[in-house]
Amino acid sequence: MMLSQTVEYALRAMVCLAAYPDTRVSAGVLADQTAVPPDYLAKVLQLLSKADLIAGRRGVGGGYQIARDPGEIGVLEVIRAVGTLDRITSCPLGIESHGKPMLCPLHHLMDKAIGAMMDVLDNHSLADIVEWTDGGQPLCLDKKGKPAPVSLGLKR
Amino acid sequence: MMLSQTVEYALRAMVCLAAYPDTRVSAGVLADQTAVPPDYLAKVLQLLSKADLIAGRRGVGGGYQIARDPGEIGVLEVIRAVGTLDRITSCPLGIESHGKPMLCPLHHLMDKAIGAMMDVLDNHSLADIVEWTDGGQPLCLDKKGKPAPVSLGLKR
Repeated sequence: MMLSQTVEYALRAMVCLAAYPDTRVSAGVLADQTAVPPDYLAKVLQLLSKADLIAGRRGVGGGYQIARDPGEIGVLEVIRAVGTLDRITSCPLGIESHGKPMLCPLHHLMDKAIGAMMDVLDNHSLADIVEWTDGGQPLCLDKKGKPAPVSLGLKR
Repeated sequence: MMLSQTVEYALRAMVCLAAYPDTRVSAGVLADQTAVPPDYLAKVLQLLSKADLIAGRRGVGGGYQIARDPGEIGVLEVIRAVGTLDRITSCPLGIESHGKPMLCPLHHLMDKAIGAMMDVLDNHSLADIVEWTDGGQPLCLDKKGKPAPVSLGLKR
């Protein structure tokens, strides 16, 4: 897989939270909405929390909430919070003469490809996704497993 | 890592073999040239062989040779021979109404990013890399660990 399962899950969770920036959502509801296994989601939420993208509170009435304006959180930032996605800035073989800007043709091409992907991701915020109107709404499933895009049972 | 270690190693090996399309290169020389651990390289060569990108012969005088014209082998084809790199063609959550062309905004964006990367990789062949003149020659190290781009000790 090109973008890891962890990245996929992190983006699902962030999109759901971005749709309700003023709401604290329980981990259980979030797991339902994103169709992510609860244990896996817990790990992902921990990473997102560590990166200060979300704020969590345990106990009764606890849950998770997006920590910043969804318009100011880029998709690439979410990906980087749970994994790595970097340009190639030095020769992977450690060949000195191949360092930037003199990456060899192979790594120059690979870097160019990675850059093309990152450009797309970096040019969109979570708000862009939530507010997207062309092509339907982003996730999620409702409790019956039916498509209920970004519905937490609350009015936005 | 965006492109896996296996992809990186496979591309190194293919670039080295593409530089000498008429030569059978031993696994040992190839490991030296690409700076790939021999055991790991053996697995990669097996995958490339299975995908009919290279032809191998064991024993004295044995080795590996590129199976087709380097100009006709795209970089993307090599990547796919050792792993997966695909567009998102259906909703990862299995939401029927999110199938193409109605991927939700999140997966539409992720697909667009993957597509941008694949376009770059698909538009270049191994010959393009070997014949690249802008920015130095592709790998490899010589036996003393010094940069000796695509040198198998043979005249091209």
